[in-house]
Amino acid sequence: MSEEDIQVELDRRRPGQSKIVTQRKEADQAEILSGLLEGITLGTPIAVMVRNQDQRSESYKEMETAYRPSHADYTYDAKYGVRAVAGGGRSSARETIGRVAAGAIARKVMRTMCPGYECIAHVKSVREITADIQPAELQREVVESNIVRTGDPLAAERMIALIEKVRSEGNSVGGVVECVVRGVPKGLGEPVFDKLEADLAKTMLSLPATKGFEIGSGFGGTQLTGLEHNDIFYSDEQGRIRTRTNRSGGIQGGISNGEDIVFRVAFKPTATVLKEQETVTRDGESTTLKVRGRHDPCVLPRAVPMVEAMVHLVIVDHWLRQQAQNARREE
Amino acid sequence: MSEEDIQVELDRRRPGQSKIVTQRKEADQAEILSGLLEGITLGTPIAVMVRNQDQRSESYKEMETAYRPSHADYTYDAKYGVRAVAGGGRSSARETIGRVAAGAIARKVMRTMCPGYECIAHVKSVREITADIQPAELQREVVESNIVRTGDPLAAERMIALIEKVRSEGNSVGGVVECVVRGVPKGLGEPVFDKLEADLAKTMLSLPATKGFEIGSGFGGTQLTGLEHNDIFYSDEQGRIRTRTNRSGGIQGGISNGEDIVFRVAFKPTATVLKEQETVTRDGESTTLKVRGRHDPCVLPRAVPMVEAMVHLVIVDHWLRQQAQNARREE
Amino acid sequence: MSEEDIQVELDRRRPGQSKIVTQRKEADQAEILSGLLEGITLGTPIAVMVRNQDQRSESYKEMETAYRPSHADYTYDAKYGVRAVAGGGRSSARETIGRVAAGAIARKVMRTMCPGYECIAHVKSVREITADIQPAELQREVVESNIVRTGDPLAAERMIALIEKVRSEGNSVGGVVECVVRGVPKGLGEPVFDKLEADLAKTMLSLPATKGFEIGSGFGGTQLTGLEHNDIFYSDEQGRIRTRTNRSGGIQGGISNGEDIVFRVAFKPTATVLKEQETVTRDGESTTLKVRGRHDPCVLPRAVPMVEAMVHLVIVDHWLRQQAQNARREE
Amino acid sequence: MSEEDIQVELDRRRPGQSKIVTQRKEADQAEILSGLLEGITLGTPIAVMVRNQDQRSESYKEMETAYRPSHADYTYDAKYGVRAVAGGGRSSARETIGRVAAGAIARKVMRTMCPGYECIAHVKSVREITADIQPAELQREVVESNIVRTGDPLAAERMIALIEKVRSEGNSVGGVVECVVRGVPKGLGEPVFDKLEADLAKTMLSLPATKGFEIGSGFGGTQLTGLEHNDIFYSDEQGRIRTRTNRSGGIQGGISNGEDIVFRVAFKPTATVLKEQETVTRDGESTTLKVRGRHDPCVLPRAVPMVEAMVHLVIVDHWLRQQAQNARREE
Repeated sequence: MSEEDIQVELDRRRPGQSKIVTQRKEADQAEILSGLLEGITLGTPIAVMVRNQDQRSESYKEMETAYRPSHADYTYDAKYGVRAVAGGGRSSARETIGRVAAGAIARKVMRTMCPGYECIAHVKSVREITADIQPAELQREVVESNIVRTGDPLAAERMIALIEKVRSEGNSVGGVVECVVRGVPKGLGEPVFDKLEADLAKTMLSLPATKGFEIGSGFGGTQLTGLEHNDIFYSDEQGRIRTRTNRSGGIQGGISNGEDIVFRVAFKPTATVLKEQETVTRDGESTTLKVRGRHDPCVLPRAVPMVEAMVHLVIVDHWLRQQAQNARREE
Repeated sequence: MSEEDIQVELDRRRPGQSKIVTQRKEADQAEILSGLLEGITLGTPIAVMVRNQDQRSESYKEMETAYRPSHADYTYDAKYGVRAVAGGGRSSARETIGRVAAGAIARKVMRTMCPGYECIAHVKSVREITADIQPAELQREVVESNIVRTGDPLAAERMIALIEKVRSEGNSVGGVVECVVRGVPKGLGEPVFDKLEADLAKTMLSLPATKGFEIGSGFGGTQLTGLEHNDIFYSDEQGRIRTRTNRSGGIQGGISNGEDIVFRVAFKPTATVLKEQETVTRDGESTTLKVRGRHDPCVLPRAVPMVEAMVHLVIVDHWLRQQAQNARREE
Repeated sequence: MSEEDIQVELDRRRPGQSKIVTQRKEADQAEILSGLLEGITLGTPIAVMVRNQDQRSESYKEMETAYRPSHADYTYDAKYGVRAVAGGGRSSARETIGRVAAGAIARKVMRTMCPGYECIAHVKSVREITADIQPAELQREVVESNIVRTGDPLAAERMIALIEKVRSEGNSVGGVVECVVRGVPKGLGEPVFDKLEADLAKTMLSLPATKGFEIGSGFGGTQLTGLEHNDIFYSDEQGRIRTRTNRSGGIQGGISNGEDIVFRVAFKPTATVLKEQETVTRDGESTTLKVRGRHDPCVLPRAVPMVEAMVHLVIVDHWLRQQAQNARREE
Repeated sequence: MSEEDIQVELDRRRPGQSKIVTQRKEADQAEILSGLLEGITLGTPIAVMVRNQDQRSESYKEMETAYRPSHADYTYDAKYGVRAVAGGGRSSARETIGRVAAGAIARKVMRTMCPGYECIAHVKSVREITADIQPAELQREVVESNIVRTGDPLAAERMIALIEKVRSEGNSVGGVVECVVRGVPKGLGEPVFDKLEADLAKTMLSLPATKGFEIGSGFGGTQLTGLEHNDIFYSDEQGRIRTRTNRSGGIQGGISNGEDIVFRVAFKPTATVLKEQETVTRDGESTTLKVRGRHDPCVLPRAVPMVEAMVHLVIVDHWLRQQAQNARREE
């Protein structure tokens, strides 16, 4: 375990990494403060610090007098009764640095303990442009080969063109991230409340700008009948019990069945747009607000490592629980 | 607080309540064992017991020799290494009785503390048949006036006809439940992980047969630009800060903003169908399985009170947290 | 796993088991409602129900008008604003039935997974009468051979005589329970907050009527110097690292070291005495109160299985955590 | 809220503050990284960083080859399978800096919300020298006026002399910290497991070097009869219900009754002594070990602010829970 393991993931999340994301300059350099000795974890908490650097307070002046539409300015004020505008405020997506750093550690645990474990997220769609690729075919090298992080190189060019057009208009777009998780041991997940898909749904909806989550057949699956939807069991050549289709998305009754876990997450268009918008001040007076400066016209490329990080954390948590409950039995 | 408060909700979830749900006969009678004295809660745990009654073991004989497709038979076996077929097994949706009972208590707390609080779920769609009604117009009396529990009486007849047709074919269908929550105080929800929509997503995906969750604009919102999607603030006649649209679905940055909370949940078609299906035995041998007996051709009508119950529980939890953190300040 | 495993422990806690405990007649019959099939746990929650039987409401009439001294009548009222006198109220030690039932299951897990695991508590002292026996010499058969449950048969007779004398005077006495836990694997316990001795202390102080906890050398150890107090390490014949003394009480830095865990718990004299006492009514008026009926003149004999039950629960929790964290490494 | 509020408590815990504590030079300077804006908390997490400074690795060379007796060297190694000797290792009491910093914040909350709230700990005894003062008479100024932090100035001199003598011999001593908490609202604490005294016991036993906890009458109370031990209720001039004695220690049935909370904690003599001791190496070979350098001959003076910090944290947690459950009712 090293700072390098963490830094590589932080760099995928970092602002300024390409022309289609925010041009804020942040090195996002991870410093491990505790828990490691010569590359070995000590069992004690691992503290990682990343200092803010390019925090231009003047860019956030507008927030002092007015609530930005569809941001969390108003709700944080309603909850805590105090405004805090520095760095875009308390609800800034900068908090996801911590998730990505922790996810890198969780990934290392899973890769060590379950060698076949692999999690690949990619941008499935940007507004109406959809990647033409199945989850089973996703390859990390392809996803990382284009700055929009989609598994379909042909769609990538059109997505990038759309994002650049939208940015030039001071507007923003949303889309869908799709994720496949391979090599998850069967048996992970808890009955009733802590179902594996429930924990995935929670963590995805805890990411900024997310509006939806679906697993396996998802909302589209409501158009099928039971006979069409059911995943038929069979035994493969190695005698392993498998399903011929995977509409369940790798989880049945809250517990992994050993098939690929496949899910999708909807991200809304970024709330920050560079056009004048109507709004109100803290006192309820009508006003207009025009945000200046740098912003993400589309969060999707930077959301990919965030989605993966949350998967690593959910899976390692359930893997630890399974170790506690059933490890001895397996042997 | 009384058994009556709980029973009325249990009756909405009960099997055998109408011709389109499973004809299993279960009284589902709640017995309060502790925590209440003459209608007053004592502060101590409230134990409610509902005994199983119509549990025909012979109906589950097939499970002993084969895994039912898209049920949790296989994954529970993979996790715990032991089969349990009585009553449909450990993953039976009968566990939702407990959720509905607890939800009835949570609802009572919220209705007492926040008098405007109201939660109405309804069946938005059954396969391709969609209710033509907006969340803001939903009325509980209309929803409860038809056995499919949709807010659109015209769609109700077509939905019922579809469900009856599908049942007669031994097949099943899924659909979408939509839910509106009114009168939620602003300020509920926690930054980062325990965002209000994250907890709603988790609890919805913890319900049996769910495959997706979306809030506000949801997946459809990915087709809009930021300028189209943002909810503009204004002050209403009472001087309250409101939003002109509600694509946020009542939650911004994880915290309620006082607008209606609106979300949708996808339910897959029931896995139990009365046709012969291929599958494997516990030893991996190929076999076929034909389930007999009673089943729900469509879980949606009975899912409505389950969705509401989980909302009550999530909201009351966050309301209690808000009381702890910020109650004094509000006064 | 069976009801028998649980019942044997409930019978050790049961009222009316001997002449020196309360003569309330309660069968305390355990009924397992869920989680077991033909003696095998299913992985799902195990619900055990024990119904109250000998609950004479007239015995608690006095509570309606006055607070019993050193009971929890007043504090529960202060907390919840509602009185509940039936069965001695919400703080009745009857809740320990649940602890003892759960402890029986935890004990079974530990005995299966760590065959050398054994936990023996006994009555070390009743007021000034002290058992003359070292923890290392404690034997379960000896403890169970006398109704006061002390490891020293000679002290047993004097303790019984004292309890009978005190009972005849309508008075009560307290004492100390000592507990030794053998065969605990080394490595259990978490740094900082969830130290093993911290969790033991919490659970012991959560038992009714407890006023103190000490481990290893305890309060007496403050009279030694560091050189006298330190436990010197050595290697035994099997090459295992051991300590020559055990003033640490089997735990160092919050983590078990493989030596016997030894601790003591102080129980105050029962608050229920059959003499008239001054007190106040709910309105603060001065009054006197004379409790009638059956009571424990000394809770110590019935506290022994409670202490053991809480040990089983703490140890199995930490054992599960250790399985999650470090199980693979051990192999 | 400011760094000053935290620093004043850190300085009470700091090494090198007087001649009777370790002479390690650590500024222990608190830097608040987040959660505060111009002295106002923002509702978001408050991160405080204190960097290690005087960390002489050579002082810990001995640890590399041998386990220090009655330290946690061996048990951490048994748990995690890896040695870490820098700075005295993972179980160093330096972690209590975080507790003291957090406690300072909790104290500020309590003082603001419950103006009469006050917590005073002091050194009740050092080995056989005992302070002659009752908890009700304790005054913070007196405690802080002597370097040993006892409430009895006469005992202070003898305690200091003893500690200096013991230090000159390379030995160490333990003792007892007593703590009184005034102005705790009645009604704090939860039935059954999270009793207020149970949480106090856990947090005290989670502090390094603690071996015992007793509340109110404690172990000594086992020498009384029930009639002698019971705290009689009466109404005071203001009509408040009070108890004439306080053997309960301010908590009855796990819930505060508004009287002073009084408890005592046993600290063993420091394990670090400057004499040669027998021990074993990691491989189980016999060896001797002589620790050099700076150490605390008696942890009691520095333990006083740690005990207070844990009290603040426990009380504020229970106060928040009470706000959530019962705040509305009180008004």
